[in-house]
Amino acid sequence: MSLSLYQASVPVFIRGLENLSHILEKGAAHAEAKKIDPAVLIGARLFPDMFALARQVQIVSDTVKGACARLAGVDIPSWPDTETTFPELQQRIAKTIDFLRSLKPEQIDGGDQKPIVLPTRSKGDIHFTAQSYLLNHAFPNFFFHVTTAYGILRHNGVEIGKWDYLGKFD
Amino acid sequence: MSLSLYQASVPVFIRGLENLSHILEKGAAHAEAKKIDPAVLIGARLFPDMFALARQVQIVSDTVKGACARLAGVDIPSWPDTETTFPELQQRIAKTIDFLRSLKPEQIDGGDQKPIVLPTRSKGDIHFTAQSYLLNHAFPNFFFHVTTAYGILRHNGVEIGKWDYLGKFD
Repeated sequence: MSLSLYQASVPVFIRGLENLSHILEKGAAHAEAKKIDPAVLIGARLFPDMFALARQVQIVSDTVKGACARLAGVDIPSWPDTETTFPELQQRIAKTIDFLRSLKPEQIDGGDQKPIVLPTRSKGDIHFTAQSYLLNHAFPNFFFHVTTAYGILRHNGVEIGKWDYLGKFD
Repeated sequence: MSLSLYQASVPVFIRGLENLSHILEKGAAHAEAKKIDPAVLIGARLFPDMFALARQVQIVSDTVKGACARLAGVDIPSWPDTETTFPELQQRIAKTIDFLRSLKPEQIDGGDQKPIVLPTRSKGDIHFTAQSYLLNHAFPNFFFHVTTAYGILRHNGVEIGKWDYLGKFD
C-alpha cells in the first residue's frame, strides 16, 4: 500500500479550502458583530509589505488550481483577482473547489515522476517531478497562505482557534 | 508509481525544519544588527493569547517527532520545552532532524492504512489511518506553526521572504 498522487493532493486541498472558508465566515461574522467595516479585515496585513487578506486567499486559490491542473496535465483556469468582499472571497474558494472536484483520479495518478515546470517571477522556471512539486512546493505554499490568512484575522481579534484551521475529524 | 509514506513524510519535514532553522538564523542576525534583545523576538506573538515564537518552534518539533514516531511505530522522544534563546531553538530543531534521520523507510512504508490514535487535550483521542493522519493533521499542523513562526518574525520587521520559507530548489 502507498499513497496515490490524487489522494495526496485534491482531497487535501479541498479540505483546506473548506477550512479556510469556515475561518473567513467567522471573520465576516466578527466584523458584523463588532460593527467593523469588513473592508478593514479584507485589507489587513501583518506587515506593510506583506499581502493583505484578500490577496492571501487569491494566492491559496492560485496555488491549488495551478498545482492540481499541472498534476492532471490540463489547462490552469485563469481568473482575475478582483475579490474585495467576504462573499466574493467565498465565491473564489467555491469556484476553486469546483475546479478541483472536476479532476478525476485517473488524470493524476501514476504521474508521480512526470516533469513539472513552475514559472516564477523571481527565480525563472523551476523544474520538479510531480511528487517533489506537490510535497516541496504546493503543500508548503498552500498552507503558508491559509495560515497567514488565519494569522491576519487572529491578529485582528477574530476568535478562531487551531481547530477551525484543522477542521473536523469525525 | 505512487508516493511512499516515508518519502511523503520524513524528507518533507526535514526540509521544512531546515528552512525554519534558516528563518530563525535571520531573526537572530536581525536582532544583533538592530541591537534588539533577542528575548523580545523569542517572546513575540501575533495576539496576546497566541503562542510566542519559542513555543511555535517547540510545537513544530512536537508535531513532527510525534508524527514520524507514530508512522514508524516507535516511542515518541520526550523533550522538555525549556528553550529560551535562538541557539537553544536551533538545538531543538537539530535534535528533531537527528531523530527523523534515525528512522528508516522500511519502518514507515507500507503502513498507510494502519490505525493511528492521536491523543488531544480538547477533543480526546482522534482515530486516523496513517495516511489520513499525515495528510490531514500532521502536514497542516506542521506548516501552520512554521508559518506562524515566520509571521511573528516578519511582523517584527525581520527581512525574510517566501523563498526563505520555501527553501532552495536546485
